[in-house]
Amino acid sequence: MQNRSEETRFSIKRAAIEAFIQGGYEAASVADICDKARVSKGAFYHHFPSKHDLFLAIMQDWLDGIDKDLASRSQSGGDVPGQIRAMGDTMGSVFAAAKGQLPLFMEFMIQASRDAKVWDAVIAPYKEYRTRFTEAISAGQKEGAISGEIEPDTAALVLMSLAIGILLQGVVTPDAADWKVVTTAGVDILLNGMERKEK
Amino acid sequence: MQNRSEETRFSIKRAAIEAFIQGGYEAASVADICDKARVSKGAFYHHFPSKHDLFLAIMQDWLDGIDKDLASRSQSGGDVPGQIRAMGDTMGSVFAAAKGQLPLFMEFMIQASRDAKVWDAVIAPYKEYRTRFTEAISAGQKEGAISGEIEPDTAALVLMSLAIGILLQGVVTPDAADWKVVTTAGVDILLNGMERKEK
Repeated sequence: MQNRSEETRFSIKRAAIEAFIQGGYEAASVADICDKARVSKGAFYHHFPSKHDLFLAIMQDWLDGIDKDLASRSQSGGDVPGQIRAMGDTMGSVFAAAKGQLPLFMEFMIQASRDAKVWDAVIAPYKEYRTRFTEAISAGQKEGAISGEIEPDTAALVLMSLAIGILLQGVVTPDAADWKVVTTAGVDILLNGMERKEK
Repeated sequence: MQNRSEETRFSIKRAAIEAFIQGGYEAASVADICDKARVSKGAFYHHFPSKHDLFLAIMQDWLDGIDKDLASRSQSGGDVPGQIRAMGDTMGSVFAAAKGQLPLFMEFMIQASRDAKVWDAVIAPYKEYRTRFTEAISAGQKEGAISGEIEPDTAALVLMSLAIGILLQGVVTPDAADWKVVTTAGVDILLNGMERKEK
């Protein structure tokens, strides 16, 4: 039964993603989503109290996917610059998933700007990454790999800005560049710029 | 007469920005905008063939403002790293203007993703900046300030990614950090990372 129930949940999410991409969140009705997913309204509401909860679940899946990948890469060991490089590589899988997802990404942004619950769901991982990067840079300073002149929180925001800028361009103009190459080059230049220089 | 006409045009734009921010582009009617601006529909259509043209004009003003400031700063002389630093400073005035503009910024993005004319208006300056940054980095390599190992177009995209990421965060979470400080630190770290190292 568990499998059947998870299958239904997955079908509803997949149908909703399709519907949101086609006509936007507002225009997609629960009836449309049920039709696409071939489930009854009863089954729908068994899984999701509302269209809005379904939207939140889809967004949470997306954020969890990035988070899981980031966590596994940052635990891969090595020194701090090596860990930051590995976290940069994570962006690669984000881009692979992002292609063609512009309308859904836009929906996330629109809903986040309008709705406190969506906003909190987006901003929580944002704050977590900011803390995680700040700690990584502080650790790098203790290791002696990163210059003591760098302000860790500011440098963390620089790293995040680079990541967010690349992500946005990867979503909006996926074919304008090889974003994986830009990510690797960007992380290399930033790490090089933060290195402690022998005087 | 020229002044009176420009005043009307300005009033219509200001009223439209207010209306777009309040309820979004779709919901704002020409009648609402005319009411807010205290102009007749005749005057409106004398200046703008449609609400869509008005929207394009507002977006173009915004892009022109950034462009004008960037151009004046890049002509301020000095070596290439100095010019790139000056271009980084431009972001400061963009942020000053961006605060509270999230809904309008979102409208630009939504319209750009849906409409080829808006898309072209956004993508043209994007391409121009990419070219301008690429040329600046190549020039810096010739001057000897920037390492020859850097691929100019890739490094230009890294710079733009940083700028876009900071801009997005400055619009979405204006109070989460001093984005001017992050910009200066980011440009410093990137330039430091691109510098030719004496071996």
